[in-house]
Amino acid sequence: MTHVDGETRVVAILGDPIAQAKSPELFNALFERYKVNAVLVPFHVPTANFGTVLEGLRGVVNLAGVVVTVPHKLLACAYTAHLSDAARQTGAINCLRREMDGTWTGAMFDGAGFVAGLHGRKHDVCGKSALIVGAGGAGVAVAHALIDAGVASLDLFDSNAASLQRLAGALRARNSRTVIRESTACAQASHDLVVNATPCGMRAGDTLPIDLTDAGPQTVVADLIMKPAETGLLAAAKARDLATHPGRHLLENSIEAMAAFLRLIPTLSTRPAAVDNADSAAA
Amino acid sequence: MTHVDGETRVVAILGDPIAQAKSPELFNALFERYKVNAVLVPFHVPTANFGTVLEGLRGVVNLAGVVVTVPHKLLACAYTAHLSDAARQTGAINCLRREMDGTWTGAMFDGAGFVAGLHGRKHDVCGKSALIVGAGGAGVAVAHALIDAGVASLDLFDSNAASLQRLAGALRARNSRTVIRESTACAQASHDLVVNATPCGMRAGDTLPIDLTDAGPQTVVADLIMKPAETGLLAAAKARDLATHPGRHLLENSIEAMAAFLRLIPTLSTRPAAVDNADSAAA
Repeated sequence: MTHVDGETRVVAILGDPIAQAKSPELFNALFERYKVNAVLVPFHVPTANFGTVLEGLRGVVNLAGVVVTVPHKLLACAYTAHLSDAARQTGAINCLRREMDGTWTGAMFDGAGFVAGLHGRKHDVCGKSALIVGAGGAGVAVAHALIDAGVASLDLFDSNAASLQRLAGALRARNSRTVIRESTACAQASHDLVVNATPCGMRAGDTLPIDLTDAGPQTVVADLIMKPAETGLLAAAKARDLATHPGRHLLENSIEAMAAFLRLIPTLSTRPAAVDNADSAAA
Repeated sequence: MTHVDGETRVVAILGDPIAQAKSPELFNALFERYKVNAVLVPFHVPTANFGTVLEGLRGVVNLAGVVVTVPHKLLACAYTAHLSDAARQTGAINCLRREMDGTWTGAMFDGAGFVAGLHGRKHDVCGKSALIVGAGGAGVAVAHALIDAGVASLDLFDSNAASLQRLAGALRARNSRTVIRESTACAQASHDLVVNATPCGMRAGDTLPIDLTDAGPQTVVADLIMKPAETGLLAAAKARDLATHPGRHLLENSIEAMAAFLRLIPTLSTRPAAVDNADSAAA
């Protein structure tokens, strides 16, 4: 529950659709926990209106910032004067902060939020072997973050060969120690982590985006999809007694970083986010 | 307390400043009472940004509408394709609804809300004699609404002679049975109602906008200022044992009409607004 008065600062989340977004509830609970007089509200904004809406919001003095979600994460970059490292690497943003000079700074917390969520569930990734299926915005963000976190090898698949090549090339250009390989949509016995970064699984009747037949018993199966909470992939993983990692952990572990970036909470807390502890039993 | 999720519809109130606005609390309590999934949020918008912000909001699909407050009530008319009768009479609006074709319809509820507030406090105005000091937006709205409510005579004063003449001329052009007179800022023994429609009284140390020396014992002294709740004028009226009518009644009695205009609540309830009953003891 949120208190709104004349002094409340406003954050808008822009997406199309937006009804499914969990950010309003998560952010507003965070603001309440920190006793910050702010509210995050959903803005359903079609792509054709994105620039006009953003320009309008730039003129609102008590706007604290903008959260950007599907399908605007790539487009939003065009409106920024500055980008965070993760935003530059991924070419996508999920958060916009208005600076004193009226320009926008864009940042991307999806990848870091995903890795923080894994760590919060005691799934370490340093030195491990991972597979990411899907080289769109989410897959790109997660791939860069897994390299930042020190994965030993990263297998990649996308049904679009150009997207796959582009991502593999960008990751290799970082000259990290991570081995980058184009792969298939099949878990291998050696994978410690497989990640669905495609939209496949959002709708009932979707086929499984990743073949788990050869997955080893140590494999953690992660899905970035937030709705449904249990995708077909996660259900299949459970049936195989594999550890599962649902999509909500990404958001739950990035909102505190986003609120700090928007200067709504003073510093990042170092404890695991309370929302992550609260639902331990559910995972 | 307000619940905000991905399906919440949004109303923005645009003003400069906005921190003092009571609309967020009043509207959000109304939405809660009606179990409507909507939230009103404050937008601090300087005049130079008004058009850009409004154009941006026009592109937000789940926007239910816009509430307009000082100093934008006159300016906002320029952005409308249609106006309600009260909006046309006053040349000002306090509410904007986006129609299916993307145009804005403007409406003005200040005057009707003020009269409804008087009626709610059992101060009938039909056949009575009133004085309005201040011929700006608020004074114009109240003057037209008092004529609609059947006042017998309306005395007007503004320190700006042109504003005074313009209002008097517009009111006379309605050819109502109300006698319209240019007057002074002095209550007379015959006045049943005197209304401060100037900003004088918002700041500590302001002089009294109306001289109450000659007011009769039946005189109701109303102030449209909402903050402070008790202006110097109302304090002076109390000292003379005159009935007082603070500014909050206007807003409290117009929000339900505004929410109905924005199609957020199905019909206007005919009972007195609960917020009006709740604070009877305070008036």
